[in-house]
Amino acid sequence: MTDQMKNNTTQVDTNDLTVNGVNMEILQETVHAIEQDPDLGQCKFRARNTWQGGTQNRSTISGFYAARQEIAHKQQFELHADEPPILAGHDEGANPVEHLLNALAACVTTSMVAHAAVQGIRIEELESELEGDLDLNGFLGLSTDVPKGFSNIRIKFRVKADADQMETLKQLTAYSPVLNTITQGANVDVQVAAK
Amino acid sequence: MTDQMKNNTTQVDTNDLTVNGVNMEILQETVHAIEQDPDLGQCKFRARNTWQGGTQNRSTISGFYAARQEIAHKQQFELHADEPPILAGHDEGANPVEHLLNALAACVTTSMVAHAAVQGIRIEELESELEGDLDLNGFLGLSTDVPKGFSNIRIKFRVKADADQMETLKQLTAYSPVLNTITQGANVDVQVAAK
Repeated sequence: MTDQMKNNTTQVDTNDLTVNGVNMEILQETVHAIEQDPDLGQCKFRARNTWQGGTQNRSTISGFYAARQEIAHKQQFELHADEPPILAGHDEGANPVEHLLNALAACVTTSMVAHAAVQGIRIEELESELEGDLDLNGFLGLSTDVPKGFSNIRIKFRVKADADQMETLKQLTAYSPVLNTITQGANVDVQVAAK
Repeated sequence: MTDQMKNNTTQVDTNDLTVNGVNMEILQETVHAIEQDPDLGQCKFRARNTWQGGTQNRSTISGFYAARQEIAHKQQFELHADEPPILAGHDEGANPVEHLLNALAACVTTSMVAHAAVQGIRIEELESELEGDLDLNGFLGLSTDVPKGFSNIRIKFRVKADADQMETLKQLTAYSPVLNTITQGANVDVQVAAK
């Protein structure tokens, strides 16, 4: 991919540093810096969450670690979760598995757009619909045979771009970190301490 | 778990139908209905996403399928994603992997609180900190040996509850659908069509 990135960036007009709304100068600087010093690619992303009672809780996201430094977001982000009434909540926020679908949609979209920009593929419009299958028999502990998480998730993208590029754009989705976390799995270490 | 649920609910004062802020009547009705008719547990959760240009996109979440019917949320939820400047964005929203950490925090919290309620464990306060390790060498395609998603995620809960219950509360986190989707993996089918 590195050589491909280098070759394809020659397709981008050097007078136009933005492709698909992505600043190619920043992106290329990041790529080149990490090529020279792979350890610069190590990031730590973070969230804090506070339970609000019942099925409601709130996350705050304020900073992360990247390029060997702690970096503050320009603003703190707050995200609310709840459950709908049928799942014993008050519908004050998307529920956790809907938040997961949002994370997946956002990540696959950004991954496709950024890698397309590097390859000189211009995208005019991009939208997606996601649907995931979840069987509550798993979560409720009514069956040990049923997965507790999503079994299948479907993403349908509709893209306004050169029609010949659809297969390439589909392949680029494979770079998405959230997609890979879901399909390849990640280790999750849980600690619970008394307050 | 079913028998355990039935036994433990006897610990809950029948005059107080809310435990940990969770309406036990609704929760128990759901459990009993799905026990009688397991197919009622099949759910489909959904999100729509629209690219806003560059690293920005927006999801809308408006309804889902559960208990053999389409159900509209009381309100439509909008979630924004962006990247920080160092990742070629404008910091107008949490980034996709931060949204994933929020989904995980929200789900493990709700799962712990609801299952604790069923077991008669009262929780007064609950908060968590999450951190996930991501190596950009994977996403950027600079190394095929590096995972493109999170390799490790750590969740540290601090709980105000009976100190003897910490190990039980930790075990209850294993019911979380988002945790299971991440640790056990899910199939993700991606389609890309011209618009």
